[in-house]
Amino acid sequence: MSRPFNFSAGPAVLPEEVLQQASAEMLDWNGSGMSVMEMSHRGEEFMSICERAESDFRLLLAIPPAFRILFMQGGGLAENAIVPLNLSRGEQADFVVTGSWSQKSRQEAAKYCDARTAASSQADGYLRIPNADTWALREGSRYVHICSNETIHGVEFSTLPDLKALGCDAPLVIDFSSHVASRSVDWSRVGLAFAGAQKNLGPAGLTVVVVREDLLGNSLQACPSAFDYRVVADNRSMYNTPPTYAIYIAGLVFQWLLRQGEADALGVAAMERRNTGKSQSLYSAIDGSGFYVNRVEPACRSRMNIPFFLRDELRNDAFLNGARTRGLLQLKGHKSVGGMRASLYNAMPVAGVQALIAYMREFEKEHA
Amino acid sequence: MSRPFNFSAGPAVLPEEVLQQASAEMLDWNGSGMSVMEMSHRGEEFMSICERAESDFRLLLAIPPAFRILFMQGGGLAENAIVPLNLSRGEQADFVVTGSWSQKSRQEAAKYCDARTAASSQADGYLRIPNADTWALREGSRYVHICSNETIHGVEFSTLPDLKALGCDAPLVIDFSSHVASRSVDWSRVGLAFAGAQKNLGPAGLTVVVVREDLLGNSLQACPSAFDYRVVADNRSMYNTPPTYAIYIAGLVFQWLLRQGEADALGVAAMERRNTGKSQSLYSAIDGSGFYVNRVEPACRSRMNIPFFLRDELRNDAFLNGARTRGLLQLKGHKSVGGMRASLYNAMPVAGVQALIAYMREFEKEHA
Repeated sequence: MSRPFNFSAGPAVLPEEVLQQASAEMLDWNGSGMSVMEMSHRGEEFMSICERAESDFRLLLAIPPAFRILFMQGGGLAENAIVPLNLSRGEQADFVVTGSWSQKSRQEAAKYCDARTAASSQADGYLRIPNADTWALREGSRYVHICSNETIHGVEFSTLPDLKALGCDAPLVIDFSSHVASRSVDWSRVGLAFAGAQKNLGPAGLTVVVVREDLLGNSLQACPSAFDYRVVADNRSMYNTPPTYAIYIAGLVFQWLLRQGEADALGVAAMERRNTGKSQSLYSAIDGSGFYVNRVEPACRSRMNIPFFLRDELRNDAFLNGARTRGLLQLKGHKSVGGMRASLYNAMPVAGVQALIAYMREFEKEHA
Repeated sequence: MSRPFNFSAGPAVLPEEVLQQASAEMLDWNGSGMSVMEMSHRGEEFMSICERAESDFRLLLAIPPAFRILFMQGGGLAENAIVPLNLSRGEQADFVVTGSWSQKSRQEAAKYCDARTAASSQADGYLRIPNADTWALREGSRYVHICSNETIHGVEFSTLPDLKALGCDAPLVIDFSSHVASRSVDWSRVGLAFAGAQKNLGPAGLTVVVVREDLLGNSLQACPSAFDYRVVADNRSMYNTPPTYAIYIAGLVFQWLLRQGEADALGVAAMERRNTGKSQSLYSAIDGSGFYVNRVEPACRSRMNIPFFLRDELRNDAFLNGARTRGLLQLKGHKSVGGMRASLYNAMPVAGVQALIAYMREFEKEHA
């Protein structure tokens, strides 16, 4: 029987091939006689798994040598504190607020530094991204934070801001949790990027941090050693015991992504093409209907997380129940926004999007 | 083929039944059509897994209602900061140093408060536990920290200290990472207990914290929200996305432990009996030989982690190579101590200990 299609915003769908391999290797990884969960993190078996995961991730996202890749714990909400603990020096940082996640990042950073909103689309219901020309970036800020894809509001930066062109020397920090590895990244514009793994990379409990080497070593006294980027980098992510099984699964996802490469496109470029296609199909279906609506400004609509509403919200439950019986799972919107949300991460097959669109048309015909 | 015996100090051996169930359920948990890794942490499926894990753990360790059980991230090294961030109020805390782990705990706590060594066995090579009567506990300390089982040095508190009887009102904090669920706990003597899961409970990346309700709510301003016990407790461990798969595996381990109960003993009591037997066999074999030695004072020898040395250390490599070919894995001692170390966690079968002892005798006969 084919598996249902799972549109969860995270933890989220994983490639079926990855789950099959994990299942087959559960009691004996590669003839070692051990599950990956049972291996010492300092043994040669796990070290080889971890090193390959790191180098595959570097390859996939074309991460330059000036950046370190760190495997950490705590997810995006922990990073909201860990970033200012490491970069702010207790001074100031600027935030562009385009949804719930960047808003939470600013609030948490305010514990550690003068964390100011440089621009916000809150008054517009987070339906657009404020034009970079209007951002009130301050001289001397230690970093500028954006959430490059807002999971809840479905808003995505289609290109990263060029802070230098805006006359700002501070490094750009991006929370790219919910679209990491779905598109290429222009690393020349980035100082630090972090991602909770549970949306597009693997299981919850792993955070991937990509940080420019020159930003290490400025942590506040209050920064726990286990979350000090310098300490983590110097210990190759082995200062504390890393989340070994989550790294293994993420590594299998990276291998799967590399296999998705096409004749003219490496893994992530091929995924980007597919993701563009998947999201365009769904947005077209929504826009072409008088029954469903997405209000986000087209230029900054997310390819990954697509919130939409039934114009008649009284039909929400019927829509969700019908979806479930057709094997279309976890379509309910975030409680702060309501309506529906379809997350179309890398592991969501084109067939899943087609099945959703077919169901939406059918439901519309029945209820319009 | 039977699996080899894995004596790793952590991440460590898991019950084979647990791994088999995890493998079988990898693509479809309980008819949900999803892997546990793919489930929203707020969905009914994962909520049921998490609630059962929590209640089974409470049952196993007979944890009274006055204590909250928190599922967190970062392991013991992160808790070394998180505990003083939550309990110290920036004032003072006392540490009984009986090995590497309690030593590290004191060092990290010194970032946040006046962290003083109340007693230490460092000068004796960590071969004993200083008598509680000699501990220099200070009036007004916010907590007293011990590591109730030192994984590296193989030293274990056979009973927890009764601070009240020592005239001390401070709560006792125990790092019980490496013997949690191997024996019962006298909760009347404990304020807070924490354990990285990767030794006796499940995969790395999950930390279990058991904290008395009245100790919540005193965190320092610098405490990240994701690591504030009050915030974590108020959100039932769902403030940030928890390490869902690790919680699921730990939950399967808890169910396995409950099944190990015997006619006259619940799960942990039955394990305690078995662990006593396993460790006594190995200590007897060591003590009865002129070839192997363990120098820890008998009254505080660990049942979980048994370091031992060949009197002729030039034979270490031959010993380890021979062990490996017999399917006895990960016996090398910690680099700071040298020699060998056999970790006999709950999931290590009696047959594994017997196989190790048989090999030790054989090796002695060949090389003595």
